[in-house]
Amino acid sequence: MSMGDELVGLPFTDSAPTERGDAARNRLLLLSAARRLLAERGADAITMDDVAAAAGVGKGTLFRRFGSRAGLMIVLLDEDEKVEQRAFMFGPPPLGPGAPPLERLLAYGRERFRFVWEHRALLSDAGRDPQTRFNAPATLHRTHVRMLLETAGTTGDLEAQADALLALLDADYVTHQVDEVGRDLEQQARAWEDLARKLCGR
Amino acid sequence: MSMGDELVGLPFTDSAPTERGDAARNRLLLLSAARRLLAERGADAITMDDVAAAAGVGKGTLFRRFGSRAGLMIVLLDEDEKVEQRAFMFGPPPLGPGAPPLERLLAYGRERFRFVWEHRALLSDAGRDPQTRFNAPATLHRTHVRMLLETAGTTGDLEAQADALLALLDADYVTHQVDEVGRDLEQQARAWEDLARKLCGR
Repeated sequence: MSMGDELVGLPFTDSAPTERGDAARNRLLLLSAARRLLAERGADAITMDDVAAAAGVGKGTLFRRFGSRAGLMIVLLDEDEKVEQRAFMFGPPPLGPGAPPLERLLAYGRERFRFVWEHRALLSDAGRDPQTRFNAPATLHRTHVRMLLETAGTTGDLEAQADALLALLDADYVTHQVDEVGRDLEQQARAWEDLARKLCGR
Repeated sequence: MSMGDELVGLPFTDSAPTERGDAARNRLLLLSAARRLLAERGADAITMDDVAAAAGVGKGTLFRRFGSRAGLMIVLLDEDEKVEQRAFMFGPPPLGPGAPPLERLLAYGRERFRFVWEHRALLSDAGRDPQTRFNAPATLHRTHVRMLLETAGTTGDLEAQADALLALLDADYVTHQVDEVGRDLEQQARAWEDLARKLCGR
């Protein structure tokens, strides 16, 4: 058996797992343990000790891999953002291409309220830094909404209107509306749809 | 001369200034020195030592009066917010009562862009805390914009539309647009006006 076979980790090798294979396996174990704990307890109640223990992986490995608790959370959020982005860029209509632009915009709003609520703790942490607040993936959302407004024939300044729509999807804002103002997600989503229609002239 | 005369600080008293009079005078000296330095250098370049020295008042007095640098900045911001609020609630039209609601809304947007830009450093600091971000004086602005949208006959969810308009006036957002995106204040103010007109159905 050649060195190359070992490195790509072919399933029929009976040698010890390679360093790379171990690292990839540990990464997967840690991320899925973190996801399980997130779903069970919410982001605020999870420590790095919990994640390492639930994954059956050493705490040193956890820190080497993700740098910090914040680093781990950013990787989890980033993975989910990418799944959502694929859905609205390449997935089936009405979220993905194929539906009329206003329909896609309304589907985007619905999906994004769901996503923001589910990830509110992670998004709130990530948004605390004013540098990241206005950068990617924010840029991707802005580009998407702006494109849908444009293809829907919206008049006026599209940047400002896209940003106004996205402001209502800010995680801290949505959470504040639910927890302090008493406007539930459904009410917020309906208001968002009304605003989107109005901007598109419907 | 009675005790009462001294306490209200009548101008014709020739006794030494009362403790209260000293405190009020120091407060005024410190605030006006801080304002002068703010105008000259911007908020980021001012230390408490600078303010005390410029006011000719001891640093201990400065801290006793305002608690911290942040405390001093909040008092300065709060004073200016109150002046602006009086202008849009009770001042002359088109900002104050007397003009048609859409005209007042447009005047509010113009005035607020000016205010936010001038106070961007103080507002950014104050907005860093997610607790204060959505509270007074934010509530007062929201109530005002919502009232103008309503009297202008705006349809749909007024809360969401008021918040969408106000999001474009967030200090960090406005600053980011100017510094990073290259959209100057005039461009932002025009886009805001267009959006306000659209929401009011004009």
